[in-house]
Amino acid sequence: MSKKKVVVSLGHDALGYTTTEQWDAVKVTAKALADLVEEDYQLIITHSNGPQVSMIHKAMTELRRVYIDYTPAPMCVCSAMSQGYVGYDIQNSLRAELLARGISKPVSTILTQVTVDPYDEAFYEPTKVIGRYMSKEDAETEIKKGNYVKEDSGKGFRRVVAAPKPIDIVELEAIRTLVNAGQVVIACGGGGIPVIEQKHALKGASAVIEKDAIAGKLAGELGVDELIILTGVDCVYKDFATEKAAPLDSMNVAEARELISQGQFGEGTMLPKIEAAIAYLEKVPEGKVRITSMKCVKEAVRGRAGTVITA
Amino acid sequence: MSKKKVVVSLGHDALGYTTTEQWDAVKVTAKALADLVEEDYQLIITHSNGPQVSMIHKAMTELRRVYIDYTPAPMCVCSAMSQGYVGYDIQNSLRAELLARGISKPVSTILTQVTVDPYDEAFYEPTKVIGRYMSKEDAETEIKKGNYVKEDSGKGFRRVVAAPKPIDIVELEAIRTLVNAGQVVIACGGGGIPVIEQKHALKGASAVIEKDAIAGKLAGELGVDELIILTGVDCVYKDFATEKAAPLDSMNVAEARELISQGQFGEGTMLPKIEAAIAYLEKVPEGKVRITSMKCVKEAVRGRAGTVITA
Repeated sequence: MSKKKVVVSLGHDALGYTTTEQWDAVKVTAKALADLVEEDYQLIITHSNGPQVSMIHKAMTELRRVYIDYTPAPMCVCSAMSQGYVGYDIQNSLRAELLARGISKPVSTILTQVTVDPYDEAFYEPTKVIGRYMSKEDAETEIKKGNYVKEDSGKGFRRVVAAPKPIDIVELEAIRTLVNAGQVVIACGGGGIPVIEQKHALKGASAVIEKDAIAGKLAGELGVDELIILTGVDCVYKDFATEKAAPLDSMNVAEARELISQGQFGEGTMLPKIEAAIAYLEKVPEGKVRITSMKCVKEAVRGRAGTVITA
Repeated sequence: MSKKKVVVSLGHDALGYTTTEQWDAVKVTAKALADLVEEDYQLIITHSNGPQVSMIHKAMTELRRVYIDYTPAPMCVCSAMSQGYVGYDIQNSLRAELLARGISKPVSTILTQVTVDPYDEAFYEPTKVIGRYMSKEDAETEIKKGNYVKEDSGKGFRRVVAAPKPIDIVELEAIRTLVNAGQVVIACGGGGIPVIEQKHALKGASAVIEKDAIAGKLAGELGVDELIILTGVDCVYKDFATEKAAPLDSMNVAEARELISQGQFGEGTMLPKIEAAIAYLEKVPEGKVRITSMKCVKEAVRGRAGTVITA
């Protein structure tokens, strides 16, 4: 029970795009995660679901096209399906990897809903593109239904949804119970199923929650020792993708805020990660955030790679 | 903690067929489940997924037809998606129904894998029909892939999969931990994702597990006080659907076996329920099984409806 608790956030690289790609990718991911277990971390895993929920949304749209007796599946349902799909692959491959190393440890997935504020600014200007290209006619039908669409230079129209901030993790107590029992938990997959409180009920929202945002939220709520955000780059850079790009070994929250104000971090890429780090450190000032790649994570937790952010 | 623990098995009636049907159906189901909570039961819920996994399988097949860059989704993946889909609707609506009655209680879904024996007789003669009708050509392709198909009088061909017996519930420890914490758990949805042990790995099997079989298994493993199987009829009948049909208030395992040997119970309908009851009572001789409908369950737990089976 004295293990360091860590929320690990997995990005697209960890999962791939199609079902077979994901099956191969999670085996590699499982090795990185098992390395962390061997470094005496207790894991709470969260992951992105962009390509997965998009695939499921496309599939449900095609189903509806062919079999008119089926009703369209709302985004919240597609999101729930994607949590089942990704969670299964991760728990299955991590369990196998741990067993192969002689470690027997329960690994399971908790299906998670996350409340969002219906008045979140993100709803006024949805930016996350999802689903297949549509004709102008179909796009007009979507608009009539109250959905947003965006034209993509000559290719057609695509639906866009909002990415509001997470407020509450509905199944937090279940997650906490498993964590306290020393088990590995996969939760808040794809940011969680976004829901809006309506009296006692939770209504699915046409939205997605940023997986980095939920990782910061989850780490803060659980009060874990560390938050590890795995991404495509080995560490955070100043002047990223320029000639004077400089890796950042460490920074504190004040320095991070200063770099944000300089516009150093890309929207939708590094910025949400830094924001998640700050949100977590504000709640858990004694905590530590590491941003690195899957390849470097083992070295990172030994202090030899990645970027460390502290309060 | 002195509440009676019960595994509740939900059938098709509890869920409906399409996404909107399910959304409406689970609200009714949630009322029946909340009634049980008010009768001081602590619930572990399992459910069927026939129409749901079939819908997802169809959708993934259509997706593959339209977008050839996607790989086909195996049955285990469709099953995992269906657990996410159904679990979400149940946990969401049960939470709302409980809150409306002033009860605040964590409800969550554990994504569950269940091992099956690759030498299970069921694999030699698959009987469970899944997915869409296929042309003769498509059917031949399926056969070449090693899958089974069945011709349906003039309508075309459909894939059939095996329904092997459940051996081990892989995520049992996670389920037990939540149950011991007094939480409501949804688990083993659709019988669980059927997997076959291959060294340390678990490989998805082209199969489905009977939801009644897994309900009996889960109840036995957890050693719960009761197993409640909800179905379309109010109780078990002798000479069902004949002029001399007689309701059975109660029976013991010996009497149940005698009725089985007389061929009293329909294969694929009442027989698997009675077999699940026996499997559970052999493991938990002090336990009690109730078979009834959702409509009658409140009366049933008060001893005024349904069939009770004891050891």
